[in-house]
Amino acid sequence: MPQSTAHITALDTYDIRFPTSRGLDGSDAMNPDPDYSAAYLVLRASDGEPEGHGFTFTIGRGNDVQVAAIDALRPYVVGRPVAELCADPGSLYRDLTGDSQLRWLGPEKGVMHMAIGAVVNAVWDLAAKREGKPLWRLLADADPAWLASQVDFRHISDALTYDDALALLRHGKHGADDRAAELLHRGYPAYTTSPGWLGYSDEKLTRLAKQAVADGFTQIKLKVGADLQDDIRRCRAAREAVGWDIRMAIDANQRWDVPEAIEWTRALAEFNPYWIEEPTSPDDILGHAAVRRSVHPVKVATGEHVQNRIVFKQLLQADAIDVLQLDSTRVGGVNENLAILLLAAKFGIPVCPHAGGVGLSELVQHLSMFDYVALSGTTDDRTIEFTDHLHEHFLDPARVGHGHYLAPTTPGFSATMHQASIDAYRYPDGTFWTADSATTDDAGTHHHALA
Amino acid sequence: MPQSTAHITALDTYDIRFPTSRGLDGSDAMNPDPDYSAAYLVLRASDGEPEGHGFTFTIGRGNDVQVAAIDALRPYVVGRPVAELCADPGSLYRDLTGDSQLRWLGPEKGVMHMAIGAVVNAVWDLAAKREGKPLWRLLADADPAWLASQVDFRHISDALTYDDALALLRHGKHGADDRAAELLHRGYPAYTTSPGWLGYSDEKLTRLAKQAVADGFTQIKLKVGADLQDDIRRCRAAREAVGWDIRMAIDANQRWDVPEAIEWTRALAEFNPYWIEEPTSPDDILGHAAVRRSVHPVKVATGEHVQNRIVFKQLLQADAIDVLQLDSTRVGGVNENLAILLLAAKFGIPVCPHAGGVGLSELVQHLSMFDYVALSGTTDDRTIEFTDHLHEHFLDPARVGHGHYLAPTTPGFSATMHQASIDAYRYPDGTFWTADSATTDDAGTHHHALA
Repeated sequence: MPQSTAHITALDTYDIRFPTSRGLDGSDAMNPDPDYSAAYLVLRASDGEPEGHGFTFTIGRGNDVQVAAIDALRPYVVGRPVAELCADPGSLYRDLTGDSQLRWLGPEKGVMHMAIGAVVNAVWDLAAKREGKPLWRLLADADPAWLASQVDFRHISDALTYDDALALLRHGKHGADDRAAELLHRGYPAYTTSPGWLGYSDEKLTRLAKQAVADGFTQIKLKVGADLQDDIRRCRAAREAVGWDIRMAIDANQRWDVPEAIEWTRALAEFNPYWIEEPTSPDDILGHAAVRRSVHPVKVATGEHVQNRIVFKQLLQADAIDVLQLDSTRVGGVNENLAILLLAAKFGIPVCPHAGGVGLSELVQHLSMFDYVALSGTTDDRTIEFTDHLHEHFLDPARVGHGHYLAPTTPGFSATMHQASIDAYRYPDGTFWTADSATTDDAGTHHHALA
Repeated sequence: MPQSTAHITALDTYDIRFPTSRGLDGSDAMNPDPDYSAAYLVLRASDGEPEGHGFTFTIGRGNDVQVAAIDALRPYVVGRPVAELCADPGSLYRDLTGDSQLRWLGPEKGVMHMAIGAVVNAVWDLAAKREGKPLWRLLADADPAWLASQVDFRHISDALTYDDALALLRHGKHGADDRAAELLHRGYPAYTTSPGWLGYSDEKLTRLAKQAVADGFTQIKLKVGADLQDDIRRCRAAREAVGWDIRMAIDANQRWDVPEAIEWTRALAEFNPYWIEEPTSPDDILGHAAVRRSVHPVKVATGEHVQNRIVFKQLLQADAIDVLQLDSTRVGGVNENLAILLLAAKFGIPVCPHAGGVGLSELVQHLSMFDYVALSGTTDDRTIEFTDHLHEHFLDPARVGHGHYLAPTTPGFSATMHQASIDAYRYPDGTFWTADSATTDDAGTHHHALA
């Protein structure tokens, strides 16, 4: 990486909230009224170095607590040499997750862990900008030994060792150039949740489901779990709209206990759901295993709320999931997601990341694209979630066409928001919020259909 | 409960930190230099009602983040009628853990969950003060149906239902009066970790271990996990000091991966450790089960970092632990600890709570005493941790004599700190911290041997 004597001069934080609850975008059985939000940070450096941007996605209240947690990490970052930081983000990641006092607040879970992830991701954004590469490319080009050194094997070495990781990454190099070319040509498969929010009418569901197929998606997803008769009616409407060749996933957002999850999923089996997502608590490894044994051939998927690599390890060890849905801002940043991708590769389980919200698509596409090019080497049964919300706030928005994410080519992690968006949606003092009463009529929708 | 029209008028928070790192009190393999701290809150009410006090224990840095999380809960509490709140703390508990936006920050884990626990515990403190009873007595006297209604069975009903809880609590009423009298007479068994901190010299370890036996303790605990040869030497010194009739637990504080935990525990087996505590990550249910299968007859214990009832449920379902170590400020307050005590009772696993730190003994004694009087009905193989730090800061400090906690008789949850302690140790503006440079010599130790 480029040498310099630059250092980090500031870590600035922003509490950014979008009023998405007004349109019932994102409504599901557990989250009836999310206000998609970001606890956002900017690393600033001396000597004309680029900025590093990162964030934790939240759904509204508590975003201030998440910002406070990121603020608490400032002393660990400011003053560090940029070149050193970018040459080894894993060193900062370990310093933060291993801090003997901070780890009491987790360890490696919840608010403090997500804050660490946001800061670590900002460093990767900075590193990729300095390299002049989109992050997926930086990762795919990286030396396997260096990449393996970025993983913390603590508490997962009974399932994945450094040697395992190195072997998987070396294997991933074979044919990587061809796959990178293919990726740039064709993109990475996407599926869409846009038709399926629980707050939408059947008419809107049907219309959006048909539109999804017309747009080239081969998989859609419906939220379920609030009322069984409603779910049966909505699944039927969706199947009537898209036919039986389109994969239709269903998502209960943790609504059920184990017995109910089994019963409810079986009751929807006639609609041939491809997977049941978050059938119960994300903490319930044994529960997911029990559900999976009972709902076959419906697959079991989870991950957007799985707190760290140690829980993912157990979900894999217990044969509890068919589909692993990592999230870009839930865990300890790129470093921990590397561990999770490696675990999935070792166990042969496809990764279909959680996205949507605000900025999650922008980040997570890089992880799946790296996985395709230089780790698992395949997109078979792999697909990234997509919803058409709030992309317009990013300088390098996720772009989906013909049912595929197009590979980013701009250097960085696609994490940078427009300054105008930050200025408008800072809570509570941004121009949108201060002018709230005057603009309520326009605020309910933030949909932008992408080509 | 007494009727009134009073309501909660304020939720005041305090960032309180004690400089314990200067004496290496509390040092272990993962926490070399804790500054025992409390994110502390006071609920104030109108109409001459008592205050409710609660807190989250932390070990220093990040205590400000924990305070911010408690602050975020203020709007959920201020304005509520006191009588209603105290008649049904479970209603507030469910409102907080179920808040559709806040739960994104967990759900039910880490900083936000501990904040909820602190607020819920403050309500129980207030409720017990209004009843004129120590909390253990309020719980032991309570109607079983009401107590069962205080539990959230969501995501644990595959292991414990409302009917199970009701049956256990009704059964616990038999002989409760006799046990309450016995408790007031004899106290509740304690064990001590005071000799075993990793930062202590062998001479200090030996001296304190002998003192513990002289003080009437029948179990001590040693921190292990940093260096095997040191551990062998320290275990040998401890056995030479206390003999073989005293139970000697060992505690690795999550230091090991699963294979290392098995190997290391076996290497210390010659010293007949009673249990190995936190052999690996608190998130690793399957890992604890693997360790337990391999280190028998050494028991496996964990819990101080177990995030919620759902993980405890699985530790029990997977036969992963012999001893359940709940903590009073890690989970969602008394309500969730009721669920955990009920799970332990259903599975027949003894509860030996985590204590120490600051204020943990004061709180958790009430839970074990309730369990003895009106749930499990026994103290066999049950014992509460005790360390002789920082009790002097509480109005109703935990009192240990002849190896037993004496039952509190003062109304409340024993959570109230002296105002002078709050004024001195508020960080960074308390009188201790502002005068820090002048008082450093006195600040290193906060030991107070209790009778």
